[in-house]
Amino acid sequence: MITVKGYGTPAFDKPLAPVAVLRRELRPHDVRIDIQFCGICHSDLHVVRNEWHNTIYPTVPGHEIVGRVLEVGGHVKSFKPGDMVAVGCLVDSCMTCASCKEDLEQFCESGATQTYNSKDRVDGSVTKGGYSESVVVTEHFVLRVPGNLDISRVAPLVCAGITTYSPLRHWKVGPGSKVGVVGLGGLGHMALKLAHAFGADVTMISTSPGKEADARRLGAHHFLLSKDEAAMKASANHFDFILDTVPSGHPLDPLVALLKRDGDLVLVGAIEPMPGFNAAPLVGLRKTIAGSLIGGIKETQEMLDFCGKHNVLPDCEMIAIQDINEAYERMIRNDVKYRFVIDMAPLKANH
Amino acid sequence: MITVKGYGTPAFDKPLAPVAVLRRELRPHDVRIDIQFCGICHSDLHVVRNEWHNTIYPTVPGHEIVGRVLEVGGHVKSFKPGDMVAVGCLVDSCMTCASCKEDLEQFCESGATQTYNSKDRVDGSVTKGGYSESVVVTEHFVLRVPGNLDISRVAPLVCAGITTYSPLRHWKVGPGSKVGVVGLGGLGHMALKLAHAFGADVTMISTSPGKEADARRLGAHHFLLSKDEAAMKASANHFDFILDTVPSGHPLDPLVALLKRDGDLVLVGAIEPMPGFNAAPLVGLRKTIAGSLIGGIKETQEMLDFCGKHNVLPDCEMIAIQDINEAYERMIRNDVKYRFVIDMAPLKANH
Repeated sequence: MITVKGYGTPAFDKPLAPVAVLRRELRPHDVRIDIQFCGICHSDLHVVRNEWHNTIYPTVPGHEIVGRVLEVGGHVKSFKPGDMVAVGCLVDSCMTCASCKEDLEQFCESGATQTYNSKDRVDGSVTKGGYSESVVVTEHFVLRVPGNLDISRVAPLVCAGITTYSPLRHWKVGPGSKVGVVGLGGLGHMALKLAHAFGADVTMISTSPGKEADARRLGAHHFLLSKDEAAMKASANHFDFILDTVPSGHPLDPLVALLKRDGDLVLVGAIEPMPGFNAAPLVGLRKTIAGSLIGGIKETQEMLDFCGKHNVLPDCEMIAIQDINEAYERMIRNDVKYRFVIDMAPLKANH
Repeated sequence: MITVKGYGTPAFDKPLAPVAVLRRELRPHDVRIDIQFCGICHSDLHVVRNEWHNTIYPTVPGHEIVGRVLEVGGHVKSFKPGDMVAVGCLVDSCMTCASCKEDLEQFCESGATQTYNSKDRVDGSVTKGGYSESVVVTEHFVLRVPGNLDISRVAPLVCAGITTYSPLRHWKVGPGSKVGVVGLGGLGHMALKLAHAFGADVTMISTSPGKEADARRLGAHHFLLSKDEAAMKASANHFDFILDTVPSGHPLDPLVALLKRDGDLVLVGAIEPMPGFNAAPLVGLRKTIAGSLIGGIKETQEMLDFCGKHNVLPDCEMIAIQDINEAYERMIRNDVKYRFVIDMAPLKANH
């Protein structure tokens, strides 16, 4: 085992602080990655504070990892030292169930192994995430980063990027699609950029008039103020697809009303109770409410390649890992445009 | 205009009673139909009692019509006197909007003309339904009844039948699909028969153990008692498709839990407020909640032809129209297996 530096926490009420992280010796299909950047996802905060009641302490979060391959196991054919790679939310899965065979490892029927706070499928150790100097991941779950992308901004693509890319693809958004995006945070801003890059007609749907300028800069062609009843009424039955990135429970009826016949409202932000809704518009125009979860490895690579081709990158604010606790407080206040990325260099410089 | 006998009501609190019904002279594309049978749908009761707050009195309900062509307008090419035909929930639509052009007249963007309680698109008169001796309908909305079917049982196909056939087709249920049907009434019993005929593996999901024997007779291969928590747990993530025919608001979480990844829960019974639900399983396994509404004319004809080929017919109880008010009371108590059909012969015999 190799000991590396990281940031983690021993309990739900403790701040993140330097911890030693053990990384395994390479198995034949393993890739050891020197982490250069790690994005901060709201999930990190949920796990650190045990808000999903499943945290195994001590925990080291981070599932938006970008770095360079340091060394590879004897059977690794796809990567070599020096390759620029990324690791997202998943580091393993059963590889044999129907979902894994369909390249949908995120839906692995025996439960995919998460990048942190999961049990390793071989030795049962608890996985530790990207707030650390390096990580070891089996090659199938390692992604290739297109050479043209600014690597300091790539990390959020493998969580916020794929979370919005996958439903846009699954529900076949393309040129001419009328797409609404609800919620302008880490997910929402990626949804605007990606839907725009797909050639869709993109509308930001928001409660805050102050978000219009930014939304347009990020790719929205239109801005719909959801508090404006007349504007909402004028947009009834307008959208083919609405991606709802709001992270908490909220009424869906006003959004369902905006969908066209056969339109889809897809939730990617909220994984919690939602209020009641009216079935009549679902029945009356065959509308659907659905959800979507990150994406499989094949699709995540496709997303990275797409972002390389179209130079789609998140808007990031770089922080040093020593400032992580302050960044969490700012994230809670939505005071980030639109994703924090940790630069790991300072951590390593202290060696 | 021609005056024919019918049954209708002048006010929400009055029983159905004999009324004179005016039927128009034939327009060039019209078909005049001698009504032999008319099914009773729960919607009839909602309209008669103004429970949807849109009834135009006097009203004559009935949108499950079967009979013989009496005469046709000068431009009618598809039908001739003597043909056995059916008319469902729709008698007209704009024929020019995107939905109509896609053979989805039920979703006509300017509102399809319903068989009763709607305004005729030409003269603005209020449409009167099938509780009457005859009806005049433009040929596009007249359906051909396969010759081998027992015509006394065909009527419910054009509402209860298409309401369940259309979503089964739209969501591509076929051999091997694991299908759940919730609610065993007029819609539910057709769903069992049709899903069985499509070659699906069919499960009746019900709160009532007493419904098992009938459900199996009607086409269910399995019976899942929704009050049995252990059985519900054992069926988690099992179904590709669940058709929910329950006519009132009810919790959806227990049904969503039964869906597989990418599974669809489709509502066809309830057009009203539903209670809150948990978004997590939608997100976690990309499940969907949707709705569906009858079917277009092309698909309704396809359904009738399918039922002809597979001899699929509803279980009906025949009544004379004089007994309609008692039948409504029994329908409210769910005391019908599984659809009332009015035999129009006694009405006409009194001439």
